[in-house]
Amino acid sequence: MERLDQQMRFAGEVDRLKGVLRQTMLAGPGRRENSAEHSWHVALMAVTLAEYAPPGTDIGRVTVMLLLHDLVEIDAGDLFVYAGEAEQARQQTAERAAANRIFALLPADQAASFRGLWDEFEERRTPEARFARGLDRLQPMLANFAAGGGTWHEHGITADQVLAKVALIEDGSPALGRYARDLVRRAVRDGLLAPAPGPAGRG
Amino acid sequence: MERLDQQMRFAGEVDRLKGVLRQTMLAGPGRRENSAEHSWHVALMAVTLAEYAPPGTDIGRVTVMLLLHDLVEIDAGDLFVYAGEAEQARQQTAERAAANRIFALLPADQAASFRGLWDEFEERRTPEARFARGLDRLQPMLANFAAGGGTWHEHGITADQVLAKVALIEDGSPALGRYARDLVRRAVRDGLLAPAPGPAGRG
Repeated sequence: MERLDQQMRFAGEVDRLKGVLRQTMLAGPGRRENSAEHSWHVALMAVTLAEYAPPGTDIGRVTVMLLLHDLVEIDAGDLFVYAGEAEQARQQTAERAAANRIFALLPADQAASFRGLWDEFEERRTPEARFARGLDRLQPMLANFAAGGGTWHEHGITADQVLAKVALIEDGSPALGRYARDLVRRAVRDGLLAPAPGPAGRG
Repeated sequence: MERLDQQMRFAGEVDRLKGVLRQTMLAGPGRRENSAEHSWHVALMAVTLAEYAPPGTDIGRVTVMLLLHDLVEIDAGDLFVYAGEAEQARQQTAERAAANRIFALLPADQAASFRGLWDEFEERRTPEARFARGLDRLQPMLANFAAGGGTWHEHGITADQVLAKVALIEDGSPALGRYARDLVRRAVRDGLLAPAPGPAGRG
């Protein structure tokens, strides 16, 4: 039973992702989203929006990638997508150390396979990783739009900054990229997102 | 864009599952688990424990089933697994009405396919549905064990009641059924679970 015991220890450890808070606000319960909720949401979006992935994309692989892409945040925490470069670099180091620890709870063959999927997601070279990364970026934009501005307001983010992030969605799925670009346009039109830094803005 | 708009409305609607609380307590943050977190956890368990499903089980299908199995709780709420028969019957009616409403947000072909997976999960006839249902039942047991008794204590649940629920896990996976049976034995041994109703108990 040693193999199963290792797998169950992993299944117990991942529970901690429910305590990792993200910046994103939930539209309903008036609190921040946690990374387990986010992971579920993007995995279900992958299934729902599968037809917008490039032909031949293995959606099963995308789904598994999204289920485990944030496990490293158990140790490293979540970093806001608009954080500066130095912070991003520190985060990357912390996430790599976390991946080393967390996936190693599993039997060796499975540790290698899960770690491989995590690396693939990070490296963004395959159609599966690109589609997954696009969804991971799209989901908080939908949440901000639904919440009437959300973290865009809270952090003084402007449309030019959001549009710079849309490139990664386009790279995973041209159709979803167009949808995201149009969402930004609607957010500006509805006053949920400032078009550019104002005189008293942060830029 | 009408098709994509429908899918995005669905993706927005499912966000509400993050506000549906279950009985299960989280070991870490000291609060009850919500159904979105639970759905993520069991989907990841399906991937991790795939080798204990009967040969030929399509784990991709199991994973999708688990990602959407609780969406009906957006309308119907979560019912405790030890609720009485009358309550279970009322819940079933409410869940069916919820399935009618929620899956219909999607384009017709996709609504039919998601609804089919939900029905399959409920009916428990295929190996995929049986394995998924077993995991759905196992996860709160692991949480109770990790939390030092959790809802077993809170609701005065005894080992005989828990063992009656283990049958469904065994039906999905003999190996996971054995693991669950042993977990109950260890829980009784460690004083986390009463072996049978005491003189002042509920039974």
